[in-house]
Amino acid sequence: MSLKQNEIRVIEVGPRDGLQNERTPIPTDVKLRFISSLVASGIEEIEATSFVSPKWVPQLADACEVVQGLSSGPKFSALVPNSRGLTRALECGVNRIAVFTAASEAFTKKNINMSIKESIDEFESVIRQFRAEVSDGWVRAYVSTAFECPYAGRIPSKAVCDVVERVLELGIDELSIGDTLGVAAPKEVESLTRDLLSFVSPEKLCYHFHDTYGLAVANTAQALEMGVTSFDSSAGGLGGCPYAPGATGNMATEDLVYFALRTGIPCSIDLDRLANASLEILESLGRRPQAKAQVARLALASETCPK
Amino acid sequence: MSLKQNEIRVIEVGPRDGLQNERTPIPTDVKLRFISSLVASGIEEIEATSFVSPKWVPQLADACEVVQGLSSGPKFSALVPNSRGLTRALECGVNRIAVFTAASEAFTKKNINMSIKESIDEFESVIRQFRAEVSDGWVRAYVSTAFECPYAGRIPSKAVCDVVERVLELGIDELSIGDTLGVAAPKEVESLTRDLLSFVSPEKLCYHFHDTYGLAVANTAQALEMGVTSFDSSAGGLGGCPYAPGATGNMATEDLVYFALRTGIPCSIDLDRLANASLEILESLGRRPQAKAQVARLALASETCPK
Repeated sequence: MSLKQNEIRVIEVGPRDGLQNERTPIPTDVKLRFISSLVASGIEEIEATSFVSPKWVPQLADACEVVQGLSSGPKFSALVPNSRGLTRALECGVNRIAVFTAASEAFTKKNINMSIKESIDEFESVIRQFRAEVSDGWVRAYVSTAFECPYAGRIPSKAVCDVVERVLELGIDELSIGDTLGVAAPKEVESLTRDLLSFVSPEKLCYHFHDTYGLAVANTAQALEMGVTSFDSSAGGLGGCPYAPGATGNMATEDLVYFALRTGIPCSIDLDRLANASLEILESLGRRPQAKAQVARLALASETCPK
Repeated sequence: MSLKQNEIRVIEVGPRDGLQNERTPIPTDVKLRFISSLVASGIEEIEATSFVSPKWVPQLADACEVVQGLSSGPKFSALVPNSRGLTRALECGVNRIAVFTAASEAFTKKNINMSIKESIDEFESVIRQFRAEVSDGWVRAYVSTAFECPYAGRIPSKAVCDVVERVLELGIDELSIGDTLGVAAPKEVESLTRDLLSFVSPEKLCYHFHDTYGLAVANTAQALEMGVTSFDSSAGGLGGCPYAPGATGNMATEDLVYFALRTGIPCSIDLDRLANASLEILESLGRRPQAKAQVARLALASETCPK
């Protein structure tokens, strides 16, 4: 492995992807405190919320309040599923949006009740409207189930590349390629990355790994070796997809940051402050820590293991 | 990554390394049932117990009973810390032994109260006696703290290579190089592996990774890429070193096997049967599953995530 010594770019998705499936309502001020603790740890890019219909995801009904409570400085974005969501997002002053599709027809159908083509058509009009209204706007496109779909099984690399090509034509700033189920092994990441990098610049490419089978960091190391330096992760490993059975969580930001620091990759994030931010939100949610770097840190601090 | 398509060799260390630190006594028949379930899952090499002094590790006082209760077929080995342990092991008919040293002086001093040289001298006489009595005997040597020591910090690759050279002169069959704290990143594994492979054949080299920071499988992928195909792991991720603060467990065999199977590496181990073997022993110990592949499997089975 010949790791590039570039800084790694961490896109924190915990406040959106991590919290969206929580059933108990989380007060807006708890969300904002979480985001503010993440910022204090040195995280510079955060997907803060989603302008999905409050009927579908009541947890994110406060999207506008969250956006309006954000500090200035870091780069905050919001997921925007459709034109109606965009209208709300624009009203709150959002200038970085994320749109969503998948590499599997069966998945878009079940997840957002559209074909892949319909979802891309939908966000073509979202992007057009957004670009018209926000001159310095930034658009990220998620392409999920890029390795395997819970309904259709393995997804061929060609299917991913086809969707990516169509998405790129819409003039997006960044792609986030998701292993939604967290099942892929580094060899698959190698193969897909090689295919993607034949027509996508590495600066536009970002991976969104889930750690279901403990392979998220191994997959990150693989992608990094090939020149991809942007990775989504979620503080505390919060999240997962409610429509993807067995997907037990995003790569934990703690584990990603530990990996980067130990590898000697410059990273502006303070692991201790990040771990404290995670502990705080986990406590609010009544959850146990699961990020390996967090569990190790707590074990060391408690000295349960004799010195 | 250009993965070799060799079979991966899994050396299961759970029954020894996983159980040695359990405070509550585990009945011998529970240990034997665990081992027999592991064998039924397709595991072919198991470190079954340790002939350490029962005064130091009461949990393994039944080493002889365990060895005498083993089936024939799989390759079973036992850790032998000194001549007294070897005498006991030979009386029970052990024909595969493991000896133990470290790359850090501070660690051998604290862990076994010897300098590295003393520990190697000790096992030189152990190996001589063993070879004299067991004509078809097999010897593995552990070199622990190969990346970092809880007392001395980072361990330079040269220190590891020096110890390995001395150990190889004793005519051992296999080395197991340990990331005892589970802190190393793939880049360090790359560097040490390169140095080791300059004078050790890959068939003699085995890694023993801990998953403290979630990097065990990433490190395995790195070593595999470089031609090392033998890895220690522990069913359910049981174990860790009582003298290594923060070392929260071995790489889980489930995670290693999932990685191998998903990568397309032939592996004779049945993941479902293996996971059941782990569940059984975890239940006996009153422990929650922690191997990612196990947690994912249970989540899928319970359908907590809506289909």
